[in-house]
Amino acid sequence: MKIVTSIHDLRTERHLLSGSVGFVPTMGFLHAGHISLVAAARAECDHVIVSIFVNPTQFGPNEDLAKYPRDLPRDLALLETAGVDLVWTPTVEVMYPTGFQTWVQVEALTRRLEGEVRPTHFRGVTTVVAKLFHAVGPDKAYFGQKDAQQAAVVRRMTKDLDIPIEIVVCPTLREPDGLAMSSRNMYLSPAERQAATILFRALSAAKSAYDSGERIAERLRAIVSSTVVSESLAKLQYVSCADYDSLEELETVRGKTLISMAVFMGKTRLIDNFVIG
Amino acid sequence: MKIVTSIHDLRTERHLLSGSVGFVPTMGFLHAGHISLVAAARAECDHVIVSIFVNPTQFGPNEDLAKYPRDLPRDLALLETAGVDLVWTPTVEVMYPTGFQTWVQVEALTRRLEGEVRPTHFRGVTTVVAKLFHAVGPDKAYFGQKDAQQAAVVRRMTKDLDIPIEIVVCPTLREPDGLAMSSRNMYLSPAERQAATILFRALSAAKSAYDSGERIAERLRAIVSSTVVSESLAKLQYVSCADYDSLEELETVRGKTLISMAVFMGKTRLIDNFVIG
Repeated sequence: MKIVTSIHDLRTERHLLSGSVGFVPTMGFLHAGHISLVAAARAECDHVIVSIFVNPTQFGPNEDLAKYPRDLPRDLALLETAGVDLVWTPTVEVMYPTGFQTWVQVEALTRRLEGEVRPTHFRGVTTVVAKLFHAVGPDKAYFGQKDAQQAAVVRRMTKDLDIPIEIVVCPTLREPDGLAMSSRNMYLSPAERQAATILFRALSAAKSAYDSGERIAERLRAIVSSTVVSESLAKLQYVSCADYDSLEELETVRGKTLISMAVFMGKTRLIDNFVIG
Repeated sequence: MKIVTSIHDLRTERHLLSGSVGFVPTMGFLHAGHISLVAAARAECDHVIVSIFVNPTQFGPNEDLAKYPRDLPRDLALLETAGVDLVWTPTVEVMYPTGFQTWVQVEALTRRLEGEVRPTHFRGVTTVVAKLFHAVGPDKAYFGQKDAQQAAVVRRMTKDLDIPIEIVVCPTLREPDGLAMSSRNMYLSPAERQAATILFRALSAAKSAYDSGERIAERLRAIVSSTVVSESLAKLQYVSCADYDSLEELETVRGKTLISMAVFMGKTRLIDNFVIG
């Protein structure tokens, strides 16, 4: 497994890989969810490239950039075991050198849900993902369904800008009790960690209702809300029942639908979602 | 010479071209300036691809989109003669299908000069150029120095987003009397056409002063202004003496410098520039 930092070295090593290339962009502090993306890339492509970059432009001024967890030696060991060919670990100076002033912005999709409460977040995501795509030049790129809006926004950007990369969205990986895997779970106190299963339980309750025939979106949202309210450590920020691609809120569930939510457990903000329909 | 409209057909034909590819994006109604870009690409690359697309998103609400000149049969004949391999003529629906909502924006550079008087222009330019780059996948792309700020903005975008394409900027081609070649020159009445040489004469006067040792930027701007004022059919919109890369206005000319201007001849807006230093 090769490890490079500069774009020049990345390109040199990239050109040595013949055949198809799968790419998994990450912010490091890897968990089984990331490794499942690597495994999907490994299964579908001749080579796998992973980037590790905690992207400052997708954090808001009051968010957790400085304390975002990092453990590069552990990440590299996990990626080596997972059969990755090339790891790119750019610095902030490599990605945003002096004079940088170009942004990629997806509009309507980024004004909803996460974008509504994190107004500059997705501009940072799409800009860094466009840069990573250009630098790596993969055939396919792998994203987790756990960050559902991010996946929708990246798919939209890739389509709108005619970027010749196939976006693959992989299922959310969960702990045995249902909590979606996330690097941010490490912030939870033991009591919060236990209470955090409320997200999965709320989504499961909504899905049960859907499976029993409920198609009124507002009732599905109400099931999520009322379940979360039952957990005193949890504070619901939003719940959504929206079209899977446009993320427009629905009145009636018809096609592929995203039920998603954001919840504060103390100071830690967690998101989760189910896809139904 | 192959001619394609859809991105699918473009990609199919593109993949048949082995070796290096030079790309010349145009809005059609070609003149010798465009053909000089094709010739430069022809000289440096194994294959040449040209796009013809009058990009609506770079025209302002009060600009000349509807009456922008078009002559596809003539353009194709010129490109065939010039030895082009592949011409891409996308429609507006191909480039901006329903649901399109992603923009590429260069910030500081686009607030000056043309960007100041055409506030949405460069967002349209960078977005369409990013799309064209992704769809065509060339090794090099060719732009004219005549649209100096456009060239600077495209170079900035390409660098900032790590797009693996070399941007080549080619000299402005001029009519025998010095008027920079432009598709918009056809709008000029005979009297305006004759008077339009004032741009070249003004820039030449500034360059003479520079060659004689003048380094005070404001004096060089004043030479341009006073020359244009002497032509009653011309109305100066702006004159600039700025750093070639950042386009920041200078007090003293030191390194590579752009003297640029926009002038109305009746209803027709002309731009021109000299690079000095």
